[in-house]
Amino acid sequence: MAERDAVLFANSAFYTAFSTRDLEAMDEAWSSAKPISCIHPGWNILYGRDEVLRSWHGIMRNPNSPKVKTHNERVVICGEMAVVTCVEELNGRQFAIATNVFVKEGHTWRLVHHQAGPANVDPASLEPSEDERPRGPVN
Amino acid sequence: MAERDAVLFANSAFYTAFSTRDLEAMDEAWSSAKPISCIHPGWNILYGRDEVLRSWHGIMRNPNSPKVKTHNERVVICGEMAVVTCVEELNGRQFAIATNVFVKEGHTWRLVHHQAGPANVDPASLEPSEDERPRGPVN
Repeated sequence: MAERDAVLFANSAFYTAFSTRDLEAMDEAWSSAKPISCIHPGWNILYGRDEVLRSWHGIMRNPNSPKVKTHNERVVICGEMAVVTCVEELNGRQFAIATNVFVKEGHTWRLVHHQAGPANVDPASLEPSEDERPRGPVN
Repeated sequence: MAERDAVLFANSAFYTAFSTRDLEAMDEAWSSAKPISCIHPGWNILYGRDEVLRSWHGIMRNPNSPKVKTHNERVVICGEMAVVTCVEELNGRQFAIATNVFVKEGHTWRLVHHQAGPANVDPASLEPSEDERPRGPVN
């Protein structure tokens, strides 16, 4: 898999874990090797796996936690660290913009940092989400 | 200079450029080699040096643009990419939290991405800003 695709796969896995409320997959999405941090919209910053994952578990245990579709992913890779920016579409009505920073651990890219904030996004600027993009044959 | 200090120096140079409205220093703070992006609080994401630097020049030409003091800097370095998170204190009254991603170009760390968002920060959680920290002798 090209490195860019591997990073996008990790980004997508993070949002799938969130949308499907899969706590185990969410834990897996985050680095165990590096100090992690997370900035939810409007919150103070959270540090470390305990604080960060407890916050996600709390959010994901709420049956009204949103389904997130991502758009306009951009990737910059530099060695074993990568940053992804994307637009988060929440329940098809609200938008946020996110920064996701990943590190490569073995063959897997894992989150070390996430920040999301509400944003004034023009829906006309959105590219189809990764899941909706036509793909070539997979044979 | 230890790598962590070099990254913190670049982070500090970025905020000094902003606070002193030094357009040239702001241009220097950003990477020319990698595709850059910037998320101002509530704005849509901006891409590329033209869009990003135009936005900063616009903000910095406003005589009421804020003085920013930073607190609680945390650095994660992975090879030639680094992420800094910090609390931004704006004019001593408002707070935002920022993610700043840097790449190493030669001996200099330059921004490839910045996101800031308003945050509910407890002033009691703030460490002294870098400028106010006691330093060892520099001889």
